[in-house]
Amino acid sequence: MCGVVPRPLDCAAMRPDLLRRVLSLLPGEGEGRPELRAYAAMLRDYPQRGGKGIRSELLLASAGAHGVAPESPRWERALWLAAALELFQNWVLIHDDIEDDSEERRGRPALHRLHGVPVAINVGDALHAYMWAAVHRAAVPGAMDEFLKMIHRTAEGQHLDLSWVERREWNLREADYLEMVQLKTAYYTVVVPLRLGALAAGCPPHDGFTAAGLALGAAFQIRDDVLNLTGDASRYGKEIGGDLLEGKRTLITLHWLGGAPEDQREAFLEQMRRERVNKDPQVVDQIHRWLLEGGSVAYAQEYAAGQAREGLTHLEDALRDAADREAVAELLTQMHTLATREA
Amino acid sequence: MCGVVPRPLDCAAMRPDLLRRVLSLLPGEGEGRPELRAYAAMLRDYPQRGGKGIRSELLLASAGAHGVAPESPRWERALWLAAALELFQNWVLIHDDIEDDSEERRGRPALHRLHGVPVAINVGDALHAYMWAAVHRAAVPGAMDEFLKMIHRTAEGQHLDLSWVERREWNLREADYLEMVQLKTAYYTVVVPLRLGALAAGCPPHDGFTAAGLALGAAFQIRDDVLNLTGDASRYGKEIGGDLLEGKRTLITLHWLGGAPEDQREAFLEQMRRERVNKDPQVVDQIHRWLLEGGSVAYAQEYAAGQAREGLTHLEDALRDAADREAVAELLTQMHTLATREA
Repeated sequence: MCGVVPRPLDCAAMRPDLLRRVLSLLPGEGEGRPELRAYAAMLRDYPQRGGKGIRSELLLASAGAHGVAPESPRWERALWLAAALELFQNWVLIHDDIEDDSEERRGRPALHRLHGVPVAINVGDALHAYMWAAVHRAAVPGAMDEFLKMIHRTAEGQHLDLSWVERREWNLREADYLEMVQLKTAYYTVVVPLRLGALAAGCPPHDGFTAAGLALGAAFQIRDDVLNLTGDASRYGKEIGGDLLEGKRTLITLHWLGGAPEDQREAFLEQMRRERVNKDPQVVDQIHRWLLEGGSVAYAQEYAAGQAREGLTHLEDALRDAADREAVAELLTQMHTLATREA
Repeated sequence: MCGVVPRPLDCAAMRPDLLRRVLSLLPGEGEGRPELRAYAAMLRDYPQRGGKGIRSELLLASAGAHGVAPESPRWERALWLAAALELFQNWVLIHDDIEDDSEERRGRPALHRLHGVPVAINVGDALHAYMWAAVHRAAVPGAMDEFLKMIHRTAEGQHLDLSWVERREWNLREADYLEMVQLKTAYYTVVVPLRLGALAAGCPPHDGFTAAGLALGAAFQIRDDVLNLTGDASRYGKEIGGDLLEGKRTLITLHWLGGAPEDQREAFLEQMRRERVNKDPQVVDQIHRWLLEGGSVAYAQEYAAGQAREGLTHLEDALRDAADREAVAELLTQMHTLATREA
């Protein structure tokens, strides 16, 4: 009784049904005074830019593996939770883009670059509340606690990252980086979607989802860090090398710092002490090449592959008793694709 | 069977029991790695600075008027909703202070001035989620919808205000200002606290709370605008004249602009086109005096008094059938104090 419609996790955009649900919760663009019509358009902007829908697909695949059939009442609930995850992703991205002073998001200027920081903070806050409207609508017991835990872990990871940037802290070990990405990325990308899928099916989430999700989430983020240096901008949706301009800590930079010649290390730290606008593009390009040539990108890729293998083993184990074997196989394939993605 | 302990709404700080509840939801400062201990301290900072507890007192007074006795199970639920309102106030203030680039909050530097904008945005987001934890804990049917509505209206009002600042828009009527403060202030300060008190008592909120709360909330905000120009900094908790430096629209400035001599009007608009740091303190001081001398502060005070009278009439009407007459009388007295406050 397989319920899920197989759908690759690296699909181009969130499914249209989910986007419709997300937009149905938001105010329409045709109502009220001009300022509030503009505000409604800002709320709808990021969701309409077409995120990849990775977390929502994972949640739906987990619901399927736990025996939820499409068109069933539980599938309807899972779809609202999936819409809530998409709203989470979107409000977090609006605020992240301000915090990192990113220029682009999904191929267009970041929201605060279009409308200013104050307006964009407020739009992100409102979208955060609309996320809770979707959680409320799903009416899945236990889901609210999952969303609370997810936001808390993500904010803690974000705090580690931001406080390191704020204090120009580069005296970090790879374990520090791993703790940060587990908090910042792994909970909302893998651990919680897996758990929400189970809850939507009315099943208690398997404890093993945490170990599985932490490893797979780390693999996912390290792949993202690699793609930020090596990817194709048109598929990746963000500027290539943006992490360097934003001074982000990655496994790649920390590994490279551990073995870099003193003069290269000094040049790197000198650029990282500067604000983004004051960085020297030529030196940053040179650093970019050092990271690629020094073997640190290859090291990170290998590390991510190890985390992916470890996570998949945990996940297979946690899904041993799940209801729908065909859907479980599909989920494992999707997770493998996600953790080793090329865009 | 009056349950409420009479307590003035202009009391110095939120009641200790509420602060304990708020802090009990937040991570402790003694756990985890140093960065996360610092993060926990940031989450606890604004609540511990001692807000006036106006909205939570109003909610509890409304619960009392609807027959909720202290120490009853419903009182416990009302206290969690009150804690959630305090958390709402605190996360909104963190983000407001960034949006307005305020220097101070409750007599100390604003959070982003202590830790930078990126960290402060993230702390506000986390506190937003802890607010939902308090709502969840209260387990009062209908409360989640009230909080959703409250955030949406507040964000819409904030958007009007911020978009006017962003576009240097001063071509506004008094009705525009009123619409803005009704959305931005009245819902979370009066309308929703009154309604939540009823819901905590298990009663459907009276429709009249909306008209009452909109008028009383407008009165409250206009008083706040007046105090920003005339108040005592030590009691007011923010810098006097800060609204002028931040370029806020108020009933006072809009009224004054309508009748100001052309040269004064030009001097005003010229300063308002400047960023805060580029404003000329001497000219701003001169504008401050014009506002006081030209009768616009007196006009706003009179307007606020009219709104307060109108709101109290609506409120009396809406509470005609409320359970506890003594508590109703207390609530009306507290509302009167709030809408005509001197600090």
